[in-house]
Amino acid sequence: MTTDRASLIPALQNIATQLRIDSARSTTAAGSGHPTSCFSMADITSALFFAEMRFDPKNPQNVDADRFILSKGHAAPILYAAWAAAGAFDRSELLKLRELGSDLEGHPTPRLPFVDVATGSLGQGVCAAIGCALNARRIGSDYRTYVLLGDGESAEGSVWEAANVGTLQKLDNLCGITDVNRLGQSQPTMWQHDMAQFERRWKAFGWHTVVIDGHDMNAILNALDEARNTKGQPTMILARTEKGKGVSFTEGKDNWHGKAMKKDELERAIGELEKQIVPGVSTANAAGMIRKPESKERPAQMPKTIPPPSYRIGDQVATREAFGDALAKLAAADPRVVALDADVKNSTYSDRFQKVAPDRFYENFIAEQVMVGASMGLAARGAIPFPSTFACFLYRAADFIRMAAIGGNNIKLAGTHAGISIGEDGPSQMALEDLAMCRAEPNFTVLYPCDAVSAERLIVEAAHVKGPAYVRISRPKTPVIYSNDDTFPVGGLKVLRQSAQDVVTVIGAGVTVFEALKAYDQLKASGTMIRVIDLYSLAPIDGQGLTAAARATKGRVITVEDHYAGGGVGDGVAEAIADAGFTVHRLAVREIPRSGKPDELLERFGISASHIVRAVVSLVGAAVAR
Amino acid sequence: MTTDRASLIPALQNIATQLRIDSARSTTAAGSGHPTSCFSMADITSALFFAEMRFDPKNPQNVDADRFILSKGHAAPILYAAWAAAGAFDRSELLKLRELGSDLEGHPTPRLPFVDVATGSLGQGVCAAIGCALNARRIGSDYRTYVLLGDGESAEGSVWEAANVGTLQKLDNLCGITDVNRLGQSQPTMWQHDMAQFERRWKAFGWHTVVIDGHDMNAILNALDEARNTKGQPTMILARTEKGKGVSFTEGKDNWHGKAMKKDELERAIGELEKQIVPGVSTANAAGMIRKPESKERPAQMPKTIPPPSYRIGDQVATREAFGDALAKLAAADPRVVALDADVKNSTYSDRFQKVAPDRFYENFIAEQVMVGASMGLAARGAIPFPSTFACFLYRAADFIRMAAIGGNNIKLAGTHAGISIGEDGPSQMALEDLAMCRAEPNFTVLYPCDAVSAERLIVEAAHVKGPAYVRISRPKTPVIYSNDDTFPVGGLKVLRQSAQDVVTVIGAGVTVFEALKAYDQLKASGTMIRVIDLYSLAPIDGQGLTAAARATKGRVITVEDHYAGGGVGDGVAEAIADAGFTVHRLAVREIPRSGKPDELLERFGISASHIVRAVVSLVGAAVAR
Repeated sequence: MTTDRASLIPALQNIATQLRIDSARSTTAAGSGHPTSCFSMADITSALFFAEMRFDPKNPQNVDADRFILSKGHAAPILYAAWAAAGAFDRSELLKLRELGSDLEGHPTPRLPFVDVATGSLGQGVCAAIGCALNARRIGSDYRTYVLLGDGESAEGSVWEAANVGTLQKLDNLCGITDVNRLGQSQPTMWQHDMAQFERRWKAFGWHTVVIDGHDMNAILNALDEARNTKGQPTMILARTEKGKGVSFTEGKDNWHGKAMKKDELERAIGELEKQIVPGVSTANAAGMIRKPESKERPAQMPKTIPPPSYRIGDQVATREAFGDALAKLAAADPRVVALDADVKNSTYSDRFQKVAPDRFYENFIAEQVMVGASMGLAARGAIPFPSTFACFLYRAADFIRMAAIGGNNIKLAGTHAGISIGEDGPSQMALEDLAMCRAEPNFTVLYPCDAVSAERLIVEAAHVKGPAYVRISRPKTPVIYSNDDTFPVGGLKVLRQSAQDVVTVIGAGVTVFEALKAYDQLKASGTMIRVIDLYSLAPIDGQGLTAAARATKGRVITVEDHYAGGGVGDGVAEAIADAGFTVHRLAVREIPRSGKPDELLERFGISASHIVRAVVSLVGAAVAR
Repeated sequence: MTTDRASLIPALQNIATQLRIDSARSTTAAGSGHPTSCFSMADITSALFFAEMRFDPKNPQNVDADRFILSKGHAAPILYAAWAAAGAFDRSELLKLRELGSDLEGHPTPRLPFVDVATGSLGQGVCAAIGCALNARRIGSDYRTYVLLGDGESAEGSVWEAANVGTLQKLDNLCGITDVNRLGQSQPTMWQHDMAQFERRWKAFGWHTVVIDGHDMNAILNALDEARNTKGQPTMILARTEKGKGVSFTEGKDNWHGKAMKKDELERAIGELEKQIVPGVSTANAAGMIRKPESKERPAQMPKTIPPPSYRIGDQVATREAFGDALAKLAAADPRVVALDADVKNSTYSDRFQKVAPDRFYENFIAEQVMVGASMGLAARGAIPFPSTFACFLYRAADFIRMAAIGGNNIKLAGTHAGISIGEDGPSQMALEDLAMCRAEPNFTVLYPCDAVSAERLIVEAAHVKGPAYVRISRPKTPVIYSNDDTFPVGGLKVLRQSAQDVVTVIGAGVTVFEALKAYDQLKASGTMIRVIDLYSLAPIDGQGLTAAARATKGRVITVEDHYAGGGVGDGVAEAIADAGFTVHRLAVREIPRSGKPDELLERFGISASHIVRAVVSLVGAAVAR
């Protein structure tokens, strides 16, 4: 720090006061919000934005700019006030807080150019910060990542997953600040102002810690210096603060969480705050105080062409192996692609990526929330992350996936070992809700290959499609049925069997495609022709193609899926063809499954070839009888 | 311990050896499984079952029996071997491991009478153990709860949520044991054999810790003594072990995770293990060594009658307030009912339960995974737990909810502030996937009241229905439309408006019921009659009632829901009426929403009365044009 502290400190204090005033004003204008959660962190925010961080308010996405993530997203008003003070937009916009027409939402989202990830579901920002910090290493930048947590959210397990990974990766470019303001939403927090409780936890998890008075500007600046100079480990600054700081009737007071001040309260508060302004120290040039990032020249890194698949039709290859192969090719071709694991890389085959690009492979051990959360941070900074594990364990990160959808983060989830076709391990290892989870999000691409060729192709499609994507992958070996030069555009489907005599359309995906093909052979032998579709793209879905098939088979449509009935293939097809007046007969898993051999389970739980045959016969019979 | 250690120890050692042999045999018979994960914990298991725990193998559900939860569920074979050795069933059953016809599944589930919660998704068992330990306090029993964790799973954030709550609740009736066997699935664990890493974390989180050699029987017994004698805090025994212990070619060796031995390997292993049997010490009477629980006489506690709701038609009452009222009534009426919160009790109104029964109200602070996990343990022990928070944050515990479904645990989730109707707080606080999550599970009851009367009634229904249930609750005040004596059986619906002239059936739930009623009024004024249904029960769903309505309106059906299109009301109705050949026109939220006033948002995102009116007009017009 070259600036003279004696003149810097009163300027920062005045900015902090102004941020409090702006936070109070905007929340009162909105009629809701969390002004007192802003007040406690105003001094820290002032120091970070106007003395510590290197960034360009006019270009927040500068690749070498320091990052700031507000993990306690409910303090959004002070984040907005800080960026306005920095000159990113006009301060008058702050009064549109929470209005439908404004991007200044109740909690921050990446609709705003200076927000990397949506926050507001607590304990997630710190996981995303891990990803931002990892990305600095990936691109060879010295930018630093700052993340501000609430004390209340420190009870979230995801925070401690992030703590472990920060230590493991020795992220000394990462600095956390916990705003220990003592008061939660419904009562005082678990540890209140017992700073030792926080310190011993973070120390135990391997972080450097600094305990300070979060309203002492000099102490804040010293702590940030100390963090910057700490090597080999991340730093957590534990700042003891007062919720509602600076206003007599809110400071340290209960029952102010998430409440905007009434008009008269606002006037009193502003009166009190204005008296705290150090005279003769203008904040008019706050923007001029900001340190600028030093942008590096970087050679353009064009992704190389990805070689096509090279399988032989009829070979038995699990889609998870093809996933590993595709990841390895992406590793070699595109420096933006990174992979993240939760200690199953030898089962998912993501270790094939690790062999090619060990420096872009991040092992999180058994901690799925930080794996997905870090991916969100990586994606926000330009990486194309593939977090992968067993599909059922992605469910552990469901709320992160929800927030990734809200933020539109460009993450590429891959879930292997989907469905009952995993066999003996039993229901705890079977994902039967994963399609429901990802299809529910309106901006997710959802893909589901059945063979090795389509798996490789769809992994590459997922990497290149914009926004969040999920690829569902299976455990068992399945025959290769596509040619290496077949393509699988997102939003498409493949008609595998068709004739003018087709009486029913059977739609499978993944392992059930092969059950449908078996059913085709059996039915054909007895003179009944069916159309068979591989619905490899569930979202977007080819409504036209499905409707055409339904029409060709007089509206007789059967779906068969290795997934529960709710939210999966059947529901997707049903909606896609509903406008044309067609309904779906769904074959799906309809009870809690159990251990057994894969084939036995497909039979027992109603999604095998024999069930398809019976459903076809019954549907055709019913139509005749009608 | 009254037994003579000198004679006890060799007996326990021999039982441990026998458990290793049985684990190896059963996994080889199955052709898959995790024998080496069993070997590392064999000595601990022997000590727990045959020297420490008080239980009755013939009645594992004895309410005063000590509990054992295998958090590392993949070691199921040794759990089964221990219960067989205890005499719960015949040892020959072990060789049916993982067969479709056997309840000895790949990972433990409560199909087995001695399993409280399904495990196999790591980091969950310790959360359930919190619930078992809390339950002992609820029923006034001195039973103790033991939970065995893997070292790898200690990276899961949920473990640290449980650690906090165990300390907060001073659960000295809870004893954890971490089997630190150093080797994860794909590589050595994060901390390998650095026992200090484990110890400083557990100590920092407030637990008493004991570090031991997990293969030293005397040390194990001493540690269990120490745990039993430690007051005011839970104990974590950190046991340094060797994966694959006892067999030369597996002990401490890589690449043995999740692999059954081949036949010849098994023979060699058994040969080596049999040599370790201390001669002259029979294990034939292992069952006789077990300590018996001292069952208390307890007066039968009959639940009292729950008073009916007492609202006035037309009053504006949020369903979340009615939820609080219902919880308070249940608190007074039924000592089995408990409530769990994650620091939002003043918004969900679960604080009304706390006021009536503070000793059955468990505050977890902001930690949704342990809240739901503890509920699973409580439910397994006879409590009727209501974990509640904002519906969107229940999503944080999605994987626990999945496992609760697998275990069929009798938990009653309540999610408030569902949907875009919360308004200004924005998308991070809006649950729009929660119906998809709970409807996907085949054994969940899913209820969704629209007014205060139905909310109170349905909360009571949820308490009394068997198995997992979810009640979706809204933030805004809505008018009371039902009489206090109306009933709401699970699986039913209410037809709110009907006439012989109805041209379309409009199905709402929760806040959209009122949009449907507004649309009814508007359409009626222009001479168009619609049928309006309140679909308060989504699972089970009244397919007959819905089909009858669809038929009465010539197959014209509109659903309108404050939820994303995937997996919600529309999909549920579509499947329910598909067999009759009817399709659904779905009004739902179809993009990532944003902040704004509730009414503005219903309009903007397509689920307001005006959208219903337009959809009705368009559907009727289309029908006329057809």
